Amino acid sequence: MPSRLIDAFATTSTLAEVFSDASVLAAMLRFEAALAHCQARLGVIPASAAEAIAAVDCLSAGSFAEEARQSATLAIPFVTALRSRVGAEAAEFVHYGTTSQDVLDTALVLMLREARRFLAQDHARLERRLRALSEEHASTCMIARTLLQPALPISFGLKVAGWHGAVQRSWRRLDAAFDEALALQFGGAVGTLDRFGPLGPRLAEELAKELDLPLPEAPWHAHRDRLASLVAQCGVYTGCLAKIARDISLLMQAEVGEVSEPGGGSTAMQHKRNPAGSVVTLAAAARVPGLVAAFLAAMPQEHERAAGGWQSEWPTVADVVQSVGSALAAVAGTVEGLTVHPDRMRANLEAATGS
Amino acid sequence: MPSRLIDAFATTSTLAEVFSDASVLAAMLRFEAALAHCQARLGVIPASAAEAIAAVDCLSAGSFAEEARQSATLAIPFVTALRSRVGAEAAEFVHYGTTSQDVLDTALVLMLREARRFLAQDHARLERRLRALSEEHASTCMIARTLLQPALPISFGLKVAGWHGAVQRSWRRLDAAFDEALALQFGGAVGTLDRFGPLGPRLAEELAKELDLPLPEAPWHAHRDRLASLVAQCGVYTGCLAKIARDISLLMQAEVGEVSEPGGGSTAMQHKRNPAGSVVTLAAAARVPGLVAAFLAAMPQEHERAAGGWQSEWPTVADVVQSVGSALAAVAGTVEGLTVHPDRMRANLEAATGS
Amino acid sequence: MPSRLIDAFATTSTLAEVFSDASVLAAMLRFEAALAHCQARLGVIPASAAEAIAAVDCLSAGSFAEEARQSATLAIPFVTALRSRVGAEAAEFVHYGTTSQDVLDTALVLMLREARRFLAQDHARLERRLRALSEEHASTCMIARTLLQPALPISFGLKVAGWHGAVQRSWRRLDAAFDEALALQFGGAVGTLDRFGPLGPRLAEELAKELDLPLPEAPWHAHRDRLASLVAQCGVYTGCLAKIARDISLLMQAEVGEVSEPGGGSTAMQHKRNPAGSVVTLAAAARVPGLVAAFLAAMPQEHERAAGGWQSEWPTVADVVQSVGSALAAVAGTVEGLTVHPDRMRANLEAATGS
Amino acid sequence: MPSRLIDAFATTSTLAEVFSDASVLAAMLRFEAALAHCQARLGVIPASAAEAIAAVDCLSAGSFAEEARQSATLAIPFVTALRSRVGAEAAEFVHYGTTSQDVLDTALVLMLREARRFLAQDHARLERRLRALSEEHASTCMIARTLLQPALPISFGLKVAGWHGAVQRSWRRLDAAFDEALALQFGGAVGTLDRFGPLGPRLAEELAKELDLPLPEAPWHAHRDRLASLVAQCGVYTGCLAKIARDISLLMQAEVGEVSEPGGGSTAMQHKRNPAGSVVTLAAAARVPGLVAAFLAAMPQEHERAAGGWQSEWPTVADVVQSVGSALAAVAGTVEGLTVHPDRMRANLEAATGS
Repeated sequence: MPSRLIDAFATTSTLAEVFSDASVLAAMLRFEAALAHCQARLGVIPASAAEAIAAVDCLSAGSFAEEARQSATLAIPFVTALRSRVGAEAAEFVHYGTTSQDVLDTALVLMLREARRFLAQDHARLERRLRALSEEHASTCMIARTLLQPALPISFGLKVAGWHGAVQRSWRRLDAAFDEALALQFGGAVGTLDRFGPLGPRLAEELAKELDLPLPEAPWHAHRDRLASLVAQCGVYTGCLAKIARDISLLMQAEVGEVSEPGGGSTAMQHKRNPAGSVVTLAAAARVPGLVAAFLAAMPQEHERAAGGWQSEWPTVADVVQSVGSALAAVAGTVEGLTVHPDRMRANLEAATGS
Repeated sequence: MPSRLIDAFATTSTLAEVFSDASVLAAMLRFEAALAHCQARLGVIPASAAEAIAAVDCLSAGSFAEEARQSATLAIPFVTALRSRVGAEAAEFVHYGTTSQDVLDTALVLMLREARRFLAQDHARLERRLRALSEEHASTCMIARTLLQPALPISFGLKVAGWHGAVQRSWRRLDAAFDEALALQFGGAVGTLDRFGPLGPRLAEELAKELDLPLPEAPWHAHRDRLASLVAQCGVYTGCLAKIARDISLLMQAEVGEVSEPGGGSTAMQHKRNPAGSVVTLAAAARVPGLVAAFLAAMPQEHERAAGGWQSEWPTVADVVQSVGSALAAVAGTVEGLTVHPDRMRANLEAATGS
Repeated sequence: MPSRLIDAFATTSTLAEVFSDASVLAAMLRFEAALAHCQARLGVIPASAAEAIAAVDCLSAGSFAEEARQSATLAIPFVTALRSRVGAEAAEFVHYGTTSQDVLDTALVLMLREARRFLAQDHARLERRLRALSEEHASTCMIARTLLQPALPISFGLKVAGWHGAVQRSWRRLDAAFDEALALQFGGAVGTLDRFGPLGPRLAEELAKELDLPLPEAPWHAHRDRLASLVAQCGVYTGCLAKIARDISLLMQAEVGEVSEPGGGSTAMQHKRNPAGSVVTLAAAARVPGLVAAFLAAMPQEHERAAGGWQSEWPTVADVVQSVGSALAAVAGTVEGLTVHPDRMRANLEAATGS
Repeated sequence: MPSRLIDAFATTSTLAEVFSDASVLAAMLRFEAALAHCQARLGVIPASAAEAIAAVDCLSAGSFAEEARQSATLAIPFVTALRSRVGAEAAEFVHYGTTSQDVLDTALVLMLREARRFLAQDHARLERRLRALSEEHASTCMIARTLLQPALPISFGLKVAGWHGAVQRSWRRLDAAFDEALALQFGGAVGTLDRFGPLGPRLAEELAKELDLPLPEAPWHAHRDRLASLVAQCGVYTGCLAKIARDISLLMQAEVGEVSEPGGGSTAMQHKRNPAGSVVTLAAAARVPGLVAAFLAAMPQEHERAAGGWQSEWPTVADVVQSVGSALAAVAGTVEGLTVHPDRMRANLEAATGS
């Protein structure tokens, strides 16, 4: 029942799908199926149980959200439902020897991996267009503005090159943060894989391979720095996107008129052209700094699993990534559709420099 | 497609419904119907048009979210759809003389009014139970703890009275902030009701009456202090709820054992009792400070309608109110189900004071 | 050693003085002197001890900051120093029966009371000038702008009236929050005034009277909602100040030219006029939302005194109040020195409406 | 006049010195001297002027802070004062062809370089002690705790290894962010080094060499991603420090008693031992997430130099770095002085597992 309308600028259709209930459950099922496969291969559970588990390819969210509140974990209603689906014999082998955090953290990682693909596509579009725009306008003169006042001449190409550089650097950092954060979570109840004895490390390796995720040197149940760094770099990257949108919305002011967006209309004034893409970018970006703060503030998590901090992370991470994606899609579209008005640039430059 | 599972601790079923797509559209339709009625009464539009508009009692969200991104406002696809539903004759009288922000801000206010009812109910439960618990344990001795170390004796009743006082004061402030924030938005394109000439003020009064909302002394298109104060007081109130949950989760530690929640189990350890309600409370509350910051940071909105700041508000406000509601429902349930262990309190007190 | 230069836009000289080391120590001494006086009057300590304590009218901060880190409280080095100053006989009666939090919270309240006076003066200046400006320009026509695009005509007086209304409402809320937050803290080690037996309540009343502070119904050692509400309302108020500065900086763009600040120059371009007051306002205001979040996030404080949350508050509160004061002083000066250009307003209006 | 007492837990003496007025002015003078030297070498200004400029080795802050508010930049009073110091002939060559942001950003970078050295030393201490502690206690059994409830056995060495891993990873990221952020700012009024014609690039290279700073591929006046990434990684690193402090403060509870800090006393209760180092760590860390949000929110800076966003950065960056340093110094001291109680660990383990 959450609202796509309320979140219209806070996500995109594509990313809303990546973080939908269906995706959550698919990712959780994928973890359980992969685990069961690996456990069967190592003789930890019967092959027939693994097959039964892997055969469940979807679950209905039903009242999971409501039930999750009773135990403070979504894994309990999920595992209960999965057990009831696999039949009596396989039931005890569902989620065998693992814990809530293994399935939930790994499911989050799987969703983030999917989201990253879409972000990368839009980033590539944006970077490509910025580079081209910068080259096209290498000699388009305009006035630079400091503190919102005319200063000295620059070229529009130089301005765009500045946008491009910031976006490129920030994506490189974000990309590296994704590399580090997309890691398997698998440690059992307290991170020691206690239920598997000497087979533990081998099982972890197999599971990582099965899910095509790196195996970190230790479980990260209470150490959230990799995710935190991802969230923080989302914040930096979004700041760079918003800077572009801010500049465009200012350049598009009627009194300035140096660029224009394809833009949107108004319900009250038919003739009006608005910097719609920039506005959506800025609206999406405005959400991100506070969300980053929320994630960072939740990092001092108690002992081997937090009482509140960990459980607060999902909506924060999902909101951050969707907001980045929304801002990115909007600004990429804006830059692709941007019309540049060199004549107005020249006129404003002349007005400012008196030449 | 947004996820109830990801938001399991960030909302409740009831509040998710209050902020659902259906509720958004119902609130927007209610605004348009009320406006049309009042306009018909004042002879601004034909009575038949008002009837046609009011007859539309639901719309499908369809691709509104996607279309809203093109114009940076949900009102455009909404009005377009509504026009196409009312028939050619009434179409031109839909949304007559009004603007995106009138319908969207007022719709938000209508949803907040609904949410407030549910918050008030849960607050009343919580306050009632805290008061009773405080009285029941007026003479139950325990050790007070400062900096997480035993200090001197107090009664458990005194501790609960502290919780009660903070919650009561903070609700009073939040309640007053609701009173102020639940106001009609109606100003037309730039806040001057320009389309209605001398009839403007009268129409605004009628509309306020029709929707049972106070009419502020002026439209608040670019002045968001009433909403900001509501959001901020949500933050203060939630902080008080989280303080209760923090204390309970600490008192319930096995080594302390002074209270226990009905609690939840674990997927890995069947015997374990967790402070599930406190954890859900803390998880919900952890989201709020960053969201408050996001709202406040968006307040310096440009001229007569912002380019980004206003458009960022909906998900922030909806998330804040739902997080408050989630924390409140969880802590109310926790306090109602709390078992107090005076024997352990006495034992810990004796261990600490050596008596 | 902290830097006034780094904080140039984050405080004013006046407020930096209000929150200086000397002010901190003066406020702490005032608490101890008032307490000793009241205790002597009630026969709790000898009159000679009270005189000796009250005779200490200043202390040097010396290495207090460094020592405070050893015990996690400034009160320990402070009390130690004060004891060594009053002579052997009075030493044991220094800080008698009270606790760190009593002196530190009350000292903060005394500093806030002082800060409030300066804020109130600048607010009065601002409100007065906004009201006058609004009246002067009741018929000065200009174009309203939505999403940074020209929309329809308004008067500049109406625009200023909007600023005025928001600032007035937000000050009223902030003022009420000050009323509530400026309360005595006095509870002894765990809030029970345990050391004074039946004299406790009477002593608290006397002390409140002596310091001219209201006596709350209970100590608030672990319940920070009054301060939180003050900090939050600072955030709302600052948002309204920043909105004015944003509008002015946009209106002062050379291409718009509808108002101008007395403004500041540039090290690189002698001829340039900058919206210096608006920039300082926006710079100060930008700090506040994150600080509000920091305060709110620290509210779930453990038991009868927090292990970290409380100890984080001082710099946050001091920074918030100084940032508000800096923004307020800057915007008040800006509005007082503002030059309005009705001719440019008319020209832009005509350009926009084609009339 | 800012207060070391208010900031007692928000900085250290060492870092307060790094960000003192004297350090700010020394860094600014160093920039101007280095620039003058390079300019003299390239024949841009007379050698005698460069000597006169470099001979000024200190300035008094005087009323710079107050004057900075008039122009919204500290550089104006600074340059004015420097000009008056160098004598009439050299005056025109002071700050020649450069701009506020060149000197202020580079001065910040120079201060950050100094701060980094101190952070690195304390980090090395912390990491060394964590590694040793982890090895010492590789077989010290204790109960792991999830959601603040006993779960299953682990070793204390494993717990410490978790702390160590998070701190090590986060430092590596922070260190890389320092590498990237510590770059020369030098672009002149609008980033084009317009005043130096073809000599510009050469002068920039020389200046970078003179200050031993990397020369970025372009000035970063309006592109703050490198600093933002540094600030954000400070946030992540601090979160890891605070996690250690949280665990220690919980383990040191009297009822748990598994570790103890050398700890601090209480003004009210002489016998009491407090987790003072953990408390200082948590207090310092609590400030950081909101400050990170403030920095990120200020990133969308207007055109070639922001009207507010840039001017808000100094206190934010200085506060973040000092808070990190305070948390780090406190937690390093805490870990170095930590006493571990294997007997209590065993007793709690047995109580929890019933064995």
